[in-house]
Amino acid sequence: MTGNRAVAYKSPGVVEVIDIDYPTFELKDGPGVNPANVGRKVPHGVILKTVTTNICGSDQHMVRGRTTAPMDLVLGHEITGEVVECGPDVEFIKVGDIVSVPFNISCGRCRNCKERKTGICLNVNPDRPGSAYGYVDMGGWVGGQAEYVLVPYADWNLLKFPDRDQALEKIMDLTMLSDIFPTGFHGAYSAGVGVGSTVYVAGAGPVGLAAAASAQLLGAAVVIVADLNEERLAQARSFGCETIDLRKGEPQDQIEQILGEPTVDCGVDAVGFEARGHGKDAGTERPATVLNSLMTVTAAGGGLSIPGLYVTGDPGGVDEAAKVGSLSIRLGLGWAKSLSFTTGQCPVMKYNRGLMMAILHDKVQIAKAVNAQAISLDDAPRGYAEFDAGKSVKYVLNPNQYIK
Amino acid sequence: MTGNRAVAYKSPGVVEVIDIDYPTFELKDGPGVNPANVGRKVPHGVILKTVTTNICGSDQHMVRGRTTAPMDLVLGHEITGEVVECGPDVEFIKVGDIVSVPFNISCGRCRNCKERKTGICLNVNPDRPGSAYGYVDMGGWVGGQAEYVLVPYADWNLLKFPDRDQALEKIMDLTMLSDIFPTGFHGAYSAGVGVGSTVYVAGAGPVGLAAAASAQLLGAAVVIVADLNEERLAQARSFGCETIDLRKGEPQDQIEQILGEPTVDCGVDAVGFEARGHGKDAGTERPATVLNSLMTVTAAGGGLSIPGLYVTGDPGGVDEAAKVGSLSIRLGLGWAKSLSFTTGQCPVMKYNRGLMMAILHDKVQIAKAVNAQAISLDDAPRGYAEFDAGKSVKYVLNPNQYIK
Amino acid sequence: MTGNRAVAYKSPGVVEVIDIDYPTFELKDGPGVNPANVGRKVPHGVILKTVTTNICGSDQHMVRGRTTAPMDLVLGHEITGEVVECGPDVEFIKVGDIVSVPFNISCGRCRNCKERKTGICLNVNPDRPGSAYGYVDMGGWVGGQAEYVLVPYADWNLLKFPDRDQALEKIMDLTMLSDIFPTGFHGAYSAGVGVGSTVYVAGAGPVGLAAAASAQLLGAAVVIVADLNEERLAQARSFGCETIDLRKGEPQDQIEQILGEPTVDCGVDAVGFEARGHGKDAGTERPATVLNSLMTVTAAGGGLSIPGLYVTGDPGGVDEAAKVGSLSIRLGLGWAKSLSFTTGQCPVMKYNRGLMMAILHDKVQIAKAVNAQAISLDDAPRGYAEFDAGKSVKYVLNPNQYIK
Amino acid sequence: MTGNRAVAYKSPGVVEVIDIDYPTFELKDGPGVNPANVGRKVPHGVILKTVTTNICGSDQHMVRGRTTAPMDLVLGHEITGEVVECGPDVEFIKVGDIVSVPFNISCGRCRNCKERKTGICLNVNPDRPGSAYGYVDMGGWVGGQAEYVLVPYADWNLLKFPDRDQALEKIMDLTMLSDIFPTGFHGAYSAGVGVGSTVYVAGAGPVGLAAAASAQLLGAAVVIVADLNEERLAQARSFGCETIDLRKGEPQDQIEQILGEPTVDCGVDAVGFEARGHGKDAGTERPATVLNSLMTVTAAGGGLSIPGLYVTGDPGGVDEAAKVGSLSIRLGLGWAKSLSFTTGQCPVMKYNRGLMMAILHDKVQIAKAVNAQAISLDDAPRGYAEFDAGKSVKYVLNPNQYIK
Repeated sequence: MTGNRAVAYKSPGVVEVIDIDYPTFELKDGPGVNPANVGRKVPHGVILKTVTTNICGSDQHMVRGRTTAPMDLVLGHEITGEVVECGPDVEFIKVGDIVSVPFNISCGRCRNCKERKTGICLNVNPDRPGSAYGYVDMGGWVGGQAEYVLVPYADWNLLKFPDRDQALEKIMDLTMLSDIFPTGFHGAYSAGVGVGSTVYVAGAGPVGLAAAASAQLLGAAVVIVADLNEERLAQARSFGCETIDLRKGEPQDQIEQILGEPTVDCGVDAVGFEARGHGKDAGTERPATVLNSLMTVTAAGGGLSIPGLYVTGDPGGVDEAAKVGSLSIRLGLGWAKSLSFTTGQCPVMKYNRGLMMAILHDKVQIAKAVNAQAISLDDAPRGYAEFDAGKSVKYVLNPNQYIK
Repeated sequence: MTGNRAVAYKSPGVVEVIDIDYPTFELKDGPGVNPANVGRKVPHGVILKTVTTNICGSDQHMVRGRTTAPMDLVLGHEITGEVVECGPDVEFIKVGDIVSVPFNISCGRCRNCKERKTGICLNVNPDRPGSAYGYVDMGGWVGGQAEYVLVPYADWNLLKFPDRDQALEKIMDLTMLSDIFPTGFHGAYSAGVGVGSTVYVAGAGPVGLAAAASAQLLGAAVVIVADLNEERLAQARSFGCETIDLRKGEPQDQIEQILGEPTVDCGVDAVGFEARGHGKDAGTERPATVLNSLMTVTAAGGGLSIPGLYVTGDPGGVDEAAKVGSLSIRLGLGWAKSLSFTTGQCPVMKYNRGLMMAILHDKVQIAKAVNAQAISLDDAPRGYAEFDAGKSVKYVLNPNQYIK
Repeated sequence: MTGNRAVAYKSPGVVEVIDIDYPTFELKDGPGVNPANVGRKVPHGVILKTVTTNICGSDQHMVRGRTTAPMDLVLGHEITGEVVECGPDVEFIKVGDIVSVPFNISCGRCRNCKERKTGICLNVNPDRPGSAYGYVDMGGWVGGQAEYVLVPYADWNLLKFPDRDQALEKIMDLTMLSDIFPTGFHGAYSAGVGVGSTVYVAGAGPVGLAAAASAQLLGAAVVIVADLNEERLAQARSFGCETIDLRKGEPQDQIEQILGEPTVDCGVDAVGFEARGHGKDAGTERPATVLNSLMTVTAAGGGLSIPGLYVTGDPGGVDEAAKVGSLSIRLGLGWAKSLSFTTGQCPVMKYNRGLMMAILHDKVQIAKAVNAQAISLDDAPRGYAEFDAGKSVKYVLNPNQYIK
Repeated sequence: MTGNRAVAYKSPGVVEVIDIDYPTFELKDGPGVNPANVGRKVPHGVILKTVTTNICGSDQHMVRGRTTAPMDLVLGHEITGEVVECGPDVEFIKVGDIVSVPFNISCGRCRNCKERKTGICLNVNPDRPGSAYGYVDMGGWVGGQAEYVLVPYADWNLLKFPDRDQALEKIMDLTMLSDIFPTGFHGAYSAGVGVGSTVYVAGAGPVGLAAAASAQLLGAAVVIVADLNEERLAQARSFGCETIDLRKGEPQDQIEQILGEPTVDCGVDAVGFEARGHGKDAGTERPATVLNSLMTVTAAGGGLSIPGLYVTGDPGGVDEAAKVGSLSIRLGLGWAKSLSFTTGQCPVMKYNRGLMMAILHDKVQIAKAVNAQAISLDDAPRGYAEFDAGKSVKYVLNPNQYIK
């Protein structure tokens, strides 16, 4: 009988590798499973042997204790796998397929899925529209930082790679298709990046780097990445981005030195609700800093997208407003400049096929851009800790030794 | 020699009809004229004899003393006129043409104009992108609540009506093309209203009513208009809208009674920065109330547009944040629902021709929807006062007796 | 044991009501069933008791013998039904639901379906992308002009009406959602019709009338419908369209009389490959007449959409070129005018939900526009004959007496 | 007094450098000038000293005698220049500016220009919407293959380069902004090319190569270029395109060898009306070959764009149909595959600014892609001849020795 080892959240700052059940075609009770989802049959699902599964910045919000995630919640929503078992209703996905799993779970049968809004599927999370594997308040679907994982609505959700050998050869790039690459791309795309654009990306973590690489892929003329962390800025420079060190203060002046003008066409917030201040406030949490700064540096008529996560409840928020997800936004400024704003989860299925093609035909080196490094499942706790400490690495777990 | 009488702001709460100079093809010094614009030549302009010019809700912000508008600023950015004189560079507009003037002044020669973003023209206002007639901080172009007015870049800006007699016959509808109808339409359109949509419009003033009429024109299935003022709600019901009285509290329950569900596809903020609270807070200014309420009632994945004006500085703001245009917004909620937001001035030229065609072919009755009533120029002070008191009327000034 | 009576094609000009098998969750061999589809399991399907099923103009191509449709092919792709049995994989559709069936069969699991291109699903028709019920070369799915019919991929395909009683009350309108209303709407929408547009619709059959009604719903200023059949033109006038009698010759002059200029913003070809000439050629088949005429009357920069059916093989074509679907098109003219062209099956699922909302909230009277009339299943042969003779009626079959 | 030497069409196959008048701010009578344009005042124009001016494939149609171009028509619509004189109405363009001239002449004041459709401006060509410098039936604006040229509506039309030295350094790339780069980009963009697309470009002349380079810039995964000329195919391979030699027959099989499937997502016709056959028909003019082939190789649901020129009259056409611009198109096939088609002149102003930014920031090497080579004005006849003979070079004339 096959076992299943997985990375679980234990308490603030602590993750551990634990033993969990091998998946079946049913969503069983467990940590964080919504009662309405307990016992849900999944004949449309497949069981994957995990090829790769990445640690995501949004996992860190849980691990830092900034959410209500329960003990023993199995983490992991960035999953690539090999199909080892198919439920009876699966028609086109086959055992042996190597597949990318969009982090948003979606049914392919509700109004929103039919409109390609798979980030807010109505049928998978009893709490609210939208779901994900291994995440608090997302319905209770078991995370994929594990040896095996169940994926529902497999014919709909899964992106099959055309060739197994090619897929395993490019796996460090393809593993980014489950979340971070489409999420970064959605950020750039929704901000209106096109051929010749100038772009400012706030945050040089993996999502920011993926947004920067995506902006380049979309033909941007200049991509400027800003952060408080020099190692991450160096990573951004490694693939041709301009960078701004926000410890030196607000970014306008540095933008002007780069572009000859203090504003850009498009802005991306790749930081989210745990933002820190700029300049002398760099050590302090200032949740509205990034958005207000973006409104200043984005030119009138520009687009502003927000792939960084903002939440409806944050027990560790800096004040009462932040605890319920309210921020003091300079909306008057945004209005005077006719800015538009795009928020929310990236609907991965809208982008992953095209991005896969770009990877398979060597049009983008996303693994290099985010500095992907494979580690073992047992090393996951170290990966979480180093990533949290600001290391500019995208950790890719390798639970079944597909990566040699 | 021709004189020129005009409506001017005198002090908070006070407007008066004063004598001003007849326009020439030059922008002369005067109240609120940006020094960099003083002496600007306007050979590309025309002088209009005003056919109609409407009082706008955004004028009220100045008249209430909520801005830094100087004494004797001539008001009026909603202008329809007859061309009486053409500058030497005007090629296609002719004396005798009856024309609608987009309230945004634009040059037709900068990057933004070439991209149809005429609300943020780069060449007409030395202070910032975007301009308007008779408005504080907009460059100093003289307002059109007057017998005569200068319109620059006439070939670019003006929408000529195809037939003079037809135009004068439908003038009460056509006069809405200069601002309020396109602005309301932009609100509905940018919120994503299409055939079959359900729509919530916050605010039943003229912009809200125009947004509601526009949503109907775009094929909306249900249009719900909310306000604190029963007379305005009755006006909304007069052309087929559902209504919600916000004195009774937050709108969700009432929406559910109308639609069978508590959310709509699209939301429009037609109130802006002087918003008041809902329910028991109806008497108090609560600048973020409308936006936060819209995030609650707009369904996940919906669009939210903000034609209502938000400003970068509000000396009369309720607190320090409001005074610089900062609002406490539930961004976490908006993000969780993947909402998108559109802000800013409506680029009138994007819409006015199509809306003119809809008026000329009787596909919309915008004058009825906003309850347009013509009054004399001398009655403007009364119009301002009654509109400010909440009367559900759109006042149309008739300075040259074109309306019999 | 339940029987099943159905309308079948027998020979050119002849349709008959015959007895066929009650459906099961399998696609069995039969007239026109692609061998690769024989024996296909359909656990994701439902069996519908037909509420209504309409005769379509595209059925007439088969009945006239202009295709290779085999004897005993069961006709009917415009289907509304009540769910009487659900396959084991169906999760959200329930017995008793009243549902509209998009005429395009699609799987909801292939690349094209995921991109909303349900008119060219890759998994349902072994011959080519795209499929339909009861149609030659479309895979062999049994037609719905019958008492009962099988619908595959039910959770994906079906549009459920929110309320049974309301649905049956408005059934003569709602029955148009399976094909003709979305098809006409797609025609108008793809031609770029928006608020204030002028539109020319070639053909006043049901698709043309639906396109005209859709153009009105989209806010068109003027909708002009042209045909050779006065009864159909009278029908178009009944809901506010302008009309042009093509027996009098090419339409430019008549357009100029209506609009004051000889061109329109948007053109729709609602005729297809069996087009006849204009003026003195009205009695002769001239397959390229409609398209070439549309290129003349559509203004430079306009959009031209082609919901009318053009085929890859037409045994009855007027010449060798027509027999393989080649037409002599004035492409040089179209190019000089920068026209764009949209062709192909309407992807019904992109539009049917919004159009349903418009019907349920009384924003459109599509049954009146197309002159819908209910007849019994046994009267289908008469319906086919009268429709083919040019009667301006949209025949709605009522096989199970849901319509009283 | 300054003279002006220019390249003129003399007779089929013959171009010569002749002396013409130095331009003034008036359109004077001359070869090909529409009578309604004679004497037209151009106070809004500037006089350019030509920096570069390219020979275009569409010039060849005239030079080959395939049009009604009159003797002594001055050629040249691909112009980059230095402003040496400004008309009195020019406000923002200044003497000394280095500027790119969109080949489409447009007024910036008509409905189409306001909608960004500058390829079909209504005010510059009395014959029909749309115009160009130095081209038959385009109003008579004097061509720019000359030392000096007049550009009307200069504030609207001209794209100013931000820095003179930088502009002259990159002039071989920037010179492509007047036509061929935007035209190729429009081809790729309108065909729907995006990140990950597979693209087939018919024709490896300069437009085809520019379309291929543009597809790469837009993120295409694979770009396949097809031609009958091996030298041109080698040029395409030089910057990473796959190629197909059409002398070997229809392209499907070769596409399948490259992609593993016989169809692409997007197709571009960069050949136009003088197309030759494929395979054994390679020596014969077959005007519909390219379009019909594109319909075969473009996948269902794909986009097909036609930057290649098709004309309304071709005295040298292969048959009566071709002489009036009619082609025998397999529309039935296109319809069955739900293809869409975009035709017409590229509206250069929609793209040139972004493409300039991409050039200035080294995101594209368009001069290399099209193999640009500078020659003197006097060498123009040789350039025409060699280009016509199939040499894979884009000839850039250098009339004033800006290029050293």
